[in-house]
Formats: sequence, structure tokens, C-alpha cells
Amino acid sequence: MHKVLITGANGFIGRHVLPRLLARGYEVHAVSRRLPTMKLPGVLWHECDLLRAGSGRALLGQLRPDSLLHLAWYAVPGSFWEARENVEWLRASLEMLAAFTDSGGRRMVAVGTCAEYDCSGGQCIEEITSLSPTTLYATSKHALERALHYWSRSTNLSSAWGRVFYLYGPHEHPSRLVASVVRSLLRGEPALCSAGTQVRDFLHVEDAAAAFVALLESEVEGAVNIASGIPITVRTLLEQIAEQIGRPELLRLGARDASREAPRIWASIQRLKDEVGWGERYDLSAGIAQTIAWWRRSLEVPRPPALCDMQP
Amino acid sequence: MHKVLITGANGFIGRHVLPRLLARGYEVHAVSRRLPTMKLPGVLWHECDLLRAGSGRALLGQLRPDSLLHLAWYAVPGSFWEARENVEWLRASLEMLAAFTDSGGRRMVAVGTCAEYDCSGGQCIEEITSLSPTTLYATSKHALERALHYWSRSTNLSSAWGRVFYLYGPHEHPSRLVASVVRSLLRGEPALCSAGTQVRDFLHVEDAAAAFVALLESEVEGAVNIASGIPITVRTLLEQIAEQIGRPELLRLGARDASREAPRIWASIQRLKDEVGWGERYDLSAGIAQTIAWWRRSLEVPRPPALCDMQP
Repeated sequence: MHKVLITGANGFIGRHVLPRLLARGYEVHAVSRRLPTMKLPGVLWHECDLLRAGSGRALLGQLRPDSLLHLAWYAVPGSFWEARENVEWLRASLEMLAAFTDSGGRRMVAVGTCAEYDCSGGQCIEEITSLSPTTLYATSKHALERALHYWSRSTNLSSAWGRVFYLYGPHEHPSRLVASVVRSLLRGEPALCSAGTQVRDFLHVEDAAAAFVALLESEVEGAVNIASGIPITVRTLLEQIAEQIGRPELLRLGARDASREAPRIWASIQRLKDEVGWGERYDLSAGIAQTIAWWRRSLEVPRPPALCDMQP
Repeated sequence: MHKVLITGANGFIGRHVLPRLLARGYEVHAVSRRLPTMKLPGVLWHECDLLRAGSGRALLGQLRPDSLLHLAWYAVPGSFWEARENVEWLRASLEMLAAFTDSGGRRMVAVGTCAEYDCSGGQCIEEITSLSPTTLYATSKHALERALHYWSRSTNLSSAWGRVFYLYGPHEHPSRLVASVVRSLLRGEPALCSAGTQVRDFLHVEDAAAAFVALLESEVEGAVNIASGIPITVRTLLEQIAEQIGRPELLRLGARDASREAPRIWASIQRLKDEVGWGERYDLSAGIAQTIAWWRRSLEVPRPPALCDMQP
């Protein structure tokens, strides 16, 4: 049985990855700074602050996994772009990279961001679109991608880099776009939004999790976009949500300014489809319906939704 | 009195920086994995392996320097381009960056490389020439530059990045170009060289050291080329050496292949001259004369030359 270690296992993507890895028959080791209150049976949890120097190396030396899915990072909405934790996560990730190789690890997949791209052209193609990270977050992520790439080239490590675009779905942080609009409308409160002219690429988090598992199991090297490949305006997405909830009058398009956001960014998913062999399960309509249903159940229960601060 | 910490203090650039910092009145703390056998009076040495996780943080927390000149890196000739130590030095450098800020540090200067540039255009200008690192060494250096740049932007840290081109002078590693040719000719042995058509930018290491001290004392932010700004062919350099030693017949131009080397790379030193206010002391002829004289003395003494493995 292959042994896989997943970091950020309690985060937005991580928690959706766990059941898939179990179903595929792995011995699943999950690491998180804080253990979840609800533990999926079969997952072996390790409570560990990977930002503490030497802790990642110690954990890897003890577990000696075959595969490493490194999802952990700092991702508090709003502050993550320029937070110093980016550099600390880069440092900790490099420690894991070296320690994983030293402990006999074979395959490593880590998570990147569409913010690595120079998105002035709209569609982002892995080997073609130029890279131009302009924040500490994107720069640190991109530095890790480069280190992973060149490190693999000079060792036996096989590695890939899943560049995530815009995700939504269950367990999303409540202050992020889809979660906040769904929650507002379900509560009967107005949702103050921008005009929504930005073109984006939205993917359901369960599809993203499935893509990461497929990428981990493949032999594909280098950067692979994790996205739907379908450009839609934010307005289209928001109107879908409002329509499905049945409260279009609560959607306040144009109430917020989005002039500083990139006008158009979406992914080519040729590599993901052709080389990784992944296909999405949710189209936008079904993905939104499932997400609304999840939030409806979650809001009915009188407790605050779980904070998922490990992944954007 | 300002307190400065210098890493890689026992390396090629570092040992030339120390007397300059002392002369400028600093309290000079020098860190090295191995302490030098000959210690410059007045320098406070700290024996420390900065690659050991947590060691850089501990040292900075103890010393709390105002300024940090971070020269340490892996630089064993030949193997440094793809060595895993690049990623380990990147990790350790990020640890120092965060710890230096935490300990109240104000000004940090670190050393980069001309290999960060896309050198297809010949002359490299800091804010204009595109960056295209293609080795683990250059990538790791460039990642540190980016981290330093964005980190400074979101903290009070003032920082600069000295991009070094081709250095020569006393204490150079014996297997590097100028040192190996000088040593061969002084011993009366043939020096097997390429045709020497490559255009390069050579600077005497004492001038580079003076430039780093000037950069540390300035408020200049970002990347600054540390170079002569004068493009010359490798052949011109080698013929100068052979002529000064008086053994032109031992120079075997064309005996080695250099077809995989970049044909032309030299620096613009506008920023270094105008913003840092630095001027070089040695022209090529004087620099070579001084270097030959040093090697002559060094070879007369029956001991192997000191290994300077901390700097390229």
C-alpha cells in the first residue's frame, strides 16, 4: 500500500482530497496545525506546525511517505497577498522538499496559483503564458515552483505543480466571494458586489481535489492548471447563485469597486485533460446547486462554519 | 556604533569586506561554518552552520545587528549550478530574512548573480533586462531577491541586492578562471583555455567588496549590478595575464570548448555609480598585476592556498 502525506489536510482543498485518497487505497497521513474536530475514519492525523524550523523534516523522517501532496500555506482572505507568512511557508516548503527526497520520497505535488501568470492576455497556458508574480504570495509560490522544477531535474524526484484558479464549494471561507454571496442571500440580506464584468474561471472544490489526486497519481511533470477552462463573468456566476436561491433582488451589482482587479483570467486545461486525464464532474449550475445546499444545511445548524484558513 | 553581521565572512568576497567594515567604524560580527586560521584583529567571529534549521534565527536573536550583509552560499566551482545546497541556502536565507526583521534589523544586503539575467542581449541593466534564471543556483538566488524585494515592501526593512558578475583577485578558488591561469603560468605549466571569444565583465574582488560596503551604507533599494561595466573578451584578459607574467607561449587558446557558454554578458553600472556612489580603484591591468603578485607570494609559501568555498 502506498503511503501518502498530505499537508494542509484540514484546509479547503485538503479536506476534499482525504476521502478520495482513502477510496484509492492509500495509507493516508494528514498533517495540520490544528486537528479537525470531525475526523474522517481511516485517516492518520499528525498535529504539527510546519512553520517551526525542523518540524517538517522530523515528520517526514518519521513517516517516510512515498508521495507528498503539499497543500499547506497561509491563506487568510485579504491579508495573504503580502503577509510575511508567505516567506515562512516558502522556507518551510523548501525544508519539506529536501527532507522528502532524503527520506526516499518519489512523487511530490504542490499547489500554485493563477496569480503567478502575467494575466494581461486572459487565457493562461502553462508553457506559453509568461509568468509575472507581483505580490509576495505569488512570488513565494512561484519561487517554490522553480525550486521544485530544478530540484526534480537534478534528483530522482518526480514532481508537479497544480496551479489553482478560482475555487468555490463546501467549507469555503465565509468571506470569500461565492460563500459570502450565498450566505447573504440565504439569510435574506443584500449582497454588495462589484459590477461583475471580470472574466474568471470557477471550479468546484471537489473537482479540484479530484484533479490533485489524479495529478499525484500521474507521472506528469511541471505546472498544470487546475481549473474549469471555461471563462465566465463574475456577473454570470452571481446571477446563477441569486436565481437558484430565488432572491435576485438582493444582488447589488456595482455596489463595490473592482477596477483594480485583472479584467480577464482563465485557464487552458489541455494538460489537465490530455496528460493527467482528468474530467470535471460538476458543471457550474450543478456545482452552485450543491454548494447552496451545503450552506443551507450548514446555516441551519446553530454553530459558526468551520474556518478553513489553510487554502485560498 | 553600528553593529553589522556578515555571513560567508570567510569567503572570497567576505574576507575582503571585513577590513573595510572595521575601517568604517562598525562593530563587525562575522559568521562562518569554519573559523579562519588567521583572524583579522577586531572582528568578532561566530562559528555557525547556517544551514542547520533555526541556527540563523538563534544567532540573529542573540546579536541583534542593525545591518546584515548576507554573502554566504554554496559555491563549489563546477557543482554549484545544480547542487541541492542552493535550495538549502535559499531556505536558510529566508529564515535569516525573517529573523533579522524580527530582531529589529534595519538594512540588509545580499548577493545575487548575473546568471539571473536573460543574457542574450549582452549588456544587463537592472530595471530593463529581463530575468530568466535557468539553473537551480540562479533560480534560488533570484527567488531570494524576489522574497527580499516584496518583504521590504511590506515591512520597515531597507534592502538591496548586489548582482555580481565575474570577479577575480586574491583568495580566489584555484580552479576558477583567473586563479587557475595565473597559477599555471607562474608554475611554468601550460594553461588550457577556450578560444576566449566570450565577452565578459571582470571586477577585482576588492572593488566588489568596497561596492558591497557602499551599498550597505546607502539607502538604495533593489538590484544593483556589482561589476566594472566594461565588456572585454576573455582572450584579452588571458593575454594580459600571460603578458604580465611573461609567459605568453604557455597560453593555449582554443584548447577547450566554450560553445555552451553565453557569448556576451556585461553590466550596466549606472546605478552603482550614480545611486550608490561607488567608483572602482583597479583598472584591469592594475588588478591583474596585484593578483599575480598575490599568487606569486602565495605559491612561494609551501602550503595549499586557502579554499574559499563560500562565494563564486
